[in-house]
Amino acid sequence: MSYRIAIVGSGAVGCYYGAHLLRAGADVHFLMRSDLAHVRENGLTIESELHDDFVVPEIQCYAATEEIGPVDLVIIALKSTENAALEELIPPLLKKGTCLLTLQNGMGNGDFLAERFGEKRVMGGLCFVCLNRTAPGVIRHLGFGLIMMGELKGEATDRTRQVGDLFSGSGVGCEVVDDLMWASWRKLVWNIPFNGLAILGGGIDVAEILADEDLLVLTRQLMREVIRTAGVLGHELPEALVDEQVEKTLAMGPYRPSSMVDFVEGRAVEVEAIWGEAWRRGAEAGAEVGRLEMMYRLIREKMRGRIKPQESSPAAAGQDSRSILNEGN
Amino acid sequence: MSYRIAIVGSGAVGCYYGAHLLRAGADVHFLMRSDLAHVRENGLTIESELHDDFVVPEIQCYAATEEIGPVDLVIIALKSTENAALEELIPPLLKKGTCLLTLQNGMGNGDFLAERFGEKRVMGGLCFVCLNRTAPGVIRHLGFGLIMMGELKGEATDRTRQVGDLFSGSGVGCEVVDDLMWASWRKLVWNIPFNGLAILGGGIDVAEILADEDLLVLTRQLMREVIRTAGVLGHELPEALVDEQVEKTLAMGPYRPSSMVDFVEGRAVEVEAIWGEAWRRGAEAGAEVGRLEMMYRLIREKMRGRIKPQESSPAAAGQDSRSILNEGN
Repeated sequence: MSYRIAIVGSGAVGCYYGAHLLRAGADVHFLMRSDLAHVRENGLTIESELHDDFVVPEIQCYAATEEIGPVDLVIIALKSTENAALEELIPPLLKKGTCLLTLQNGMGNGDFLAERFGEKRVMGGLCFVCLNRTAPGVIRHLGFGLIMMGELKGEATDRTRQVGDLFSGSGVGCEVVDDLMWASWRKLVWNIPFNGLAILGGGIDVAEILADEDLLVLTRQLMREVIRTAGVLGHELPEALVDEQVEKTLAMGPYRPSSMVDFVEGRAVEVEAIWGEAWRRGAEAGAEVGRLEMMYRLIREKMRGRIKPQESSPAAAGQDSRSILNEGN
Repeated sequence: MSYRIAIVGSGAVGCYYGAHLLRAGADVHFLMRSDLAHVRENGLTIESELHDDFVVPEIQCYAATEEIGPVDLVIIALKSTENAALEELIPPLLKKGTCLLTLQNGMGNGDFLAERFGEKRVMGGLCFVCLNRTAPGVIRHLGFGLIMMGELKGEATDRTRQVGDLFSGSGVGCEVVDDLMWASWRKLVWNIPFNGLAILGGGIDVAEILADEDLLVLTRQLMREVIRTAGVLGHELPEALVDEQVEKTLAMGPYRPSSMVDFVEGRAVEVEAIWGEAWRRGAEAGAEVGRLEMMYRLIREKMRGRIKPQESSPAAAGQDSRSILNEGN
C-alpha cells in the first residue's frame, strides 16, 4: 500500500523522519511555518554523525493543512505545548481510516488526539534520537534514531506493523510494541531526571549532572521512582534500567537535554507532557511520586521566574548549542 | 547566683541577647572579630520594631577567648558552618561546671559540643527571632524573640531553669522545655521549607513563596514531611502546625529568610545543620524523607554553582536587605 502522508510540525523530528520517508519513495507533505520559503527553494538537508548526509531537493511543503487535504497517515511532531493548534490543523487531513501517529515528547498527546478525533485513529511513537535544527531546512543528527511504535490502546495490529515497515524501510530503526505506554514510561525514565535536573541546575548538560555527586544520587532516585510508578500502573520496567541509562548517558558526553535548551533560550518547555502527566497518573494510582511532584513544581516555578534570553548572560548565550530534541538512550 | 558569661559569635543573635543580659546587670564578655574596635568605642545599639531601642555603651569585648578566661556560661551564636573553630575557642572558657548553651541554627550543634566537651555541659536554645545586623555594633530587631531552651539530653533541670530565668529576667521571652529535640524539629518545620524554597527559587522572599501556587503546595508538603519525620523520631508535632505556620508567615510580609540572604550574598549556607542533619536522622530512622533529601541535594548543587556576589546583577545586589537571622514563627 502506498501511503499519502502529512507531517504536522516540521521541526527537527518531523523533518528528519519525513526526509527519510520521502527519500524512500513515500508521498510526503510537510506543513511548515518559518522555514517554508527556504525549504521550497532549497529542500531539506540531513547531516549525520552516524550515517551518510543527504539532501532532498524537492519538498512538497505548505502553509496550511487545507492545501494538503486528506491523507492516509498524519505524523504529528509538533511541540506538545502547541497541541491546542491541532484542533484546527488536523480536520482537513482526515478521511475514513486516516491514522494519526504522534511522535511527540512525553505523555498525554495520544489521549489529546483520541478525545478529539477518535481513539481508533491514534498511534504513538517514541523517538530515541538526538537531533538539532542548525539552520533553516538543515537538521543535524547527533545520535540514535530508534522509534518504538504502537497503538494508543491495545496491542499492535497489521496497521501498526505496516506503518512500522514504512519507517524501517526508510532506513530508520523502528520497533513495533504491544504496549505503547510501557515504551512511554521507559523513555520518561531518562527524560524526567535529565531534562529536569538540567533545568533545575540552571542550564547544565548531562555530563555536569553525572559529575555532581548530589545530582547523580537524585538522577538514580528519580529513575527508580519513575520505574516504580510505571510498575504501579502495570508497565513493568527492570530496576537494572537505572544503571544501564546512567552508563549510556556517560557515553553521551556534554549533551544538552532539549527541555533545558528550550528553557535557557526562553522557549516553551513541555512541562505537562514530561513531568505533569507522569506525576498525575502516578499520584492517581497511589504511587509514591514525591520527588517527581517536587521536580514538576520547582520547574513550573522556575518557568514563571525565567530570565528572558535577552537578559541572560553573554556566556550562557554564546554556549555551543548542541540541542537534543528527543533524547536517545 | 551571678553568672560570668562569654558570648562566642557576636553576630546579630549573640549581640541581641548579650546586650539584653548585660543591660539586666549580668557580667557578659563578647568575643568579636570585625566589629571589635567599633564596639569598644561605641558600644552596642539595639533598634527594635517591637520594644524600645537601647544602647549599651560599655561592652567588654575581646579578640580571643584566652583574654576572657573561665566562665559559668558560654553562649554560642557562631554560624554552624564555622563550628570547627569552636575546638580552639571553647577550652580557655572552661572550668568545672561551665555550661555551653548553643543558640545556633538547625541540628547537630549540641552533639558537636557534646562530643568534644562532654554531654553534661551542653544546653541548647532555639531562637524564634528576626534580626538584622545593619551596621557595625547595630542590631535591628524585626520581630519575635522567644527562646525555647532545654538540656541537650534529658529533661529540664534546676540549671536549665536558672539559665532560663536569666534570659526571662533580661526582657526576652524564654520557655524552658523538657525535649530540646522536639523544639528543634518544631523550628525546622519552618526553616526547612522557607529557607530552602527561597534559595531554590533563586533568592525569593517568603511572600513570593506563598504567592506561588506550586511553592505553596511544596511548602505544605515539606512541613508535613518534617512533622512526620519528627514523629518517627519520637517528637510529636501536630499536623495543625502546617496551617498555623503558613498563616504566621503570611503576616511576615516580604521577609527574606537568612539562608537565602547568605546564599545570594555569597556567604556560607548552613546546609548541613538545617537540611543535612534532618534528612540523615530521618533516613536512619526509616522515615519517608524524599522531598527533604531532594531539597538538600539541590541546594548543595546550587551552592557549588553559586554566582559570586560580584557577578550578581545590580538589581539583586541593590535589593533592600531585610535579613532575618533566626526566623521567628
